[in-house]
Amino acid sequence: MIAEIICVGNELLYGDTLNTNTRYLSQQLAMIGIDVNYQLVVGDNEPILLDALQLASERADIVILSGGLGPTYDDMTKETVAKALNQKLVLDQPSLEAIKAIFNRMGREMTDSNNKQAYRPSGGVSLPNNNGTAPGIYVSQDDTHYFCLPGPPSELMPMYQEQVKPRLETLTNQVITSTIFSLAGIGESALANKIGHIMDHSDNPRIAPYVKTGSVNIRVTAMTTTAREGEAMLHSVREELMPLIGDYVYSEIGEDIETVLVNRLKDNKMTIATAESCTGGLMSSRIVNVSGASDVFMNGFTTYSNEAKSNLIGVDPELIATHGAVSEEVALSMAVGVREVSASSIGVGITGVAGPTGGTIEKPVGTVCIAVSGEQGNSVRKYQFNGNRQKIREISAQFALVQALRLIEEFKK
Amino acid sequence: MIAEIICVGNELLYGDTLNTNTRYLSQQLAMIGIDVNYQLVVGDNEPILLDALQLASERADIVILSGGLGPTYDDMTKETVAKALNQKLVLDQPSLEAIKAIFNRMGREMTDSNNKQAYRPSGGVSLPNNNGTAPGIYVSQDDTHYFCLPGPPSELMPMYQEQVKPRLETLTNQVITSTIFSLAGIGESALANKIGHIMDHSDNPRIAPYVKTGSVNIRVTAMTTTAREGEAMLHSVREELMPLIGDYVYSEIGEDIETVLVNRLKDNKMTIATAESCTGGLMSSRIVNVSGASDVFMNGFTTYSNEAKSNLIGVDPELIATHGAVSEEVALSMAVGVREVSASSIGVGITGVAGPTGGTIEKPVGTVCIAVSGEQGNSVRKYQFNGNRQKIREISAQFALVQALRLIEEFKK
Repeated sequence: MIAEIICVGNELLYGDTLNTNTRYLSQQLAMIGIDVNYQLVVGDNEPILLDALQLASERADIVILSGGLGPTYDDMTKETVAKALNQKLVLDQPSLEAIKAIFNRMGREMTDSNNKQAYRPSGGVSLPNNNGTAPGIYVSQDDTHYFCLPGPPSELMPMYQEQVKPRLETLTNQVITSTIFSLAGIGESALANKIGHIMDHSDNPRIAPYVKTGSVNIRVTAMTTTAREGEAMLHSVREELMPLIGDYVYSEIGEDIETVLVNRLKDNKMTIATAESCTGGLMSSRIVNVSGASDVFMNGFTTYSNEAKSNLIGVDPELIATHGAVSEEVALSMAVGVREVSASSIGVGITGVAGPTGGTIEKPVGTVCIAVSGEQGNSVRKYQFNGNRQKIREISAQFALVQALRLIEEFKK
Repeated sequence: MIAEIICVGNELLYGDTLNTNTRYLSQQLAMIGIDVNYQLVVGDNEPILLDALQLASERADIVILSGGLGPTYDDMTKETVAKALNQKLVLDQPSLEAIKAIFNRMGREMTDSNNKQAYRPSGGVSLPNNNGTAPGIYVSQDDTHYFCLPGPPSELMPMYQEQVKPRLETLTNQVITSTIFSLAGIGESALANKIGHIMDHSDNPRIAPYVKTGSVNIRVTAMTTTAREGEAMLHSVREELMPLIGDYVYSEIGEDIETVLVNRLKDNKMTIATAESCTGGLMSSRIVNVSGASDVFMNGFTTYSNEAKSNLIGVDPELIATHGAVSEEVALSMAVGVREVSASSIGVGITGVAGPTGGTIEKPVGTVCIAVSGEQGNSVRKYQFNGNRQKIREISAQFALVQALRLIEEFKK
């Protein structure tokens, strides 16, 4: 089945809001084996949306709209869908009750404009919204299935999971089993060399790699008639892939590196502390973003100046004078120092030239030294990254997380 | 004039890559007064792209494409545009030389597939790419202007600025003068109450607000025939707006808060140090992301555990026992402590419940206390933020940056 995504909103057309809904919906549809041929954004404009709906009905089986379900006059997605399908809008009593209940809870007066949100096309059903006032809509006509979802991602995502996905699975009449392998330490082309013969023309299960900053993921999707068949298919893909890529896989269920690191530290009853220079706290902030990080993360230092490196985590000023602040020696001393000061199992030191200024011929912009120190050994590496300041900093934090995980994995052997 | 944006790439259709090019281009077009009616994403698929180009030529004056200019067989944007316009592809000698020079610099062999990148539609011109191998294309036919730009944002953005924008300005035959007011401490609806009468139906200059995490920006765009008229128009808008919103404006040229903060600190020869708990280094990493931050940012602490708060920045354990780690008292002690330990002019302390666990009835998820301490006084505030863990952490860092700036501004009086 083919789906088309239409996001509605002037804030998207002006570029004021970054469109994350399209990406979310596309990822979700890919996971259940539904192809998307067109992603579209139009403004709060009835004639243009009518045209878009007309085209979508010709070229897709499933049309998912987001945005334009609010209470104001310029919210008109539902109204326009009803018009396109030649249906009347009717009051949906359960939706009205639900909206009333929300206003009661907030102790606020419900206005007439909120009534508008309780209407639905006569041939459709309302989709309850547990995270906002705007119900969604599902309506099917002439073999095309339309879903209207609210624009805020915090409302759209749960509504997709609770209301849309189960309906799509019924439509496709297929069981979809999928997983994601997360890899670090290997680039896209090296990966293609290793498993290109398996990926190429993989249709079912579909094996598709995609690149993220400093890592590569492989999504495997099986479409079968029973769950057992799907599991068996994934199992045999795993058997085929792991001997070739196992060294690079840090998660077989698509977790991000900081989540894996925090969990491994927990498993091993270990703690971690960070000393960051060019990344300025990016690594610690990613660790802290994992709920429950408090069990393993005691503290971090952003030692941006040489003085801070010496005063706070005991880097010898002589070492900085001899090798420069951006050197494997100083990175190691930061890792060892922060581990001592923090009495943690693992210490991490990151120092680099993020640019745009500060580069030299010997240490050009993008030179980053990362060290990880633990009970049983240290690892120090010098990298040369490309990109602007922010990109270099992001990739540095990513590689430091990977390097820390690698050291812990070694402990387990 | 009406523009349409078409991004080409399977990685976008699968949701593997977040589409930031569309937003960038839309923002840029809005700034020079060009309306966008449709934003479109299609895959690496010739028939679909041909259809899309056909439609775009009917409904837009300007078509901007991104992606699909690479060396491999599935890159076919340029080829498809040539086909749609019934033009041949011809070798562009200067482009070939430029690509050769890049490969020479990298010390790598140029392959036949890279030759492909040097071709252009016979009626078009190549747009030099100073940040990658793929040249862009500009071709005009039947009153529609097509621009093909490379997919990587680090190549697309400079090419837009250097090659596309000047051509569009010639096309529109208008001088566009614009600026952005960045505001903090006021919400969108409160802003509408203050300046709604000025914004409403503002056409030229167009006055449009848009919301970012923890701040509101107002974009003012004037379309005139001379630069002087444009400047005069912006000047009179400023005269009208500032008495109403001046208290909330931290930049009149759209800078982000960390850039303004770093510059004000520099101007005042001041330094700053941070102690972060729930934000885990987000604030310091934003400060460090400003090039030249080393002049003002000495060090930061991520004091996530109670022990770290006490050992590293001298928060009295009794204070934590009495008031709890998330309290105005502890935030202030963190700010005072980090300022002392770091011998900096300003100290910042952030402590809060980012969730999803850890909330209580008295201190629900989203409770965040932020303190800023300086020579001439302290500011401490308790906030109640909404959202998931990451949102709460982002908005906390934003508000801490604002609070620090407010304290410095007071010093200037």
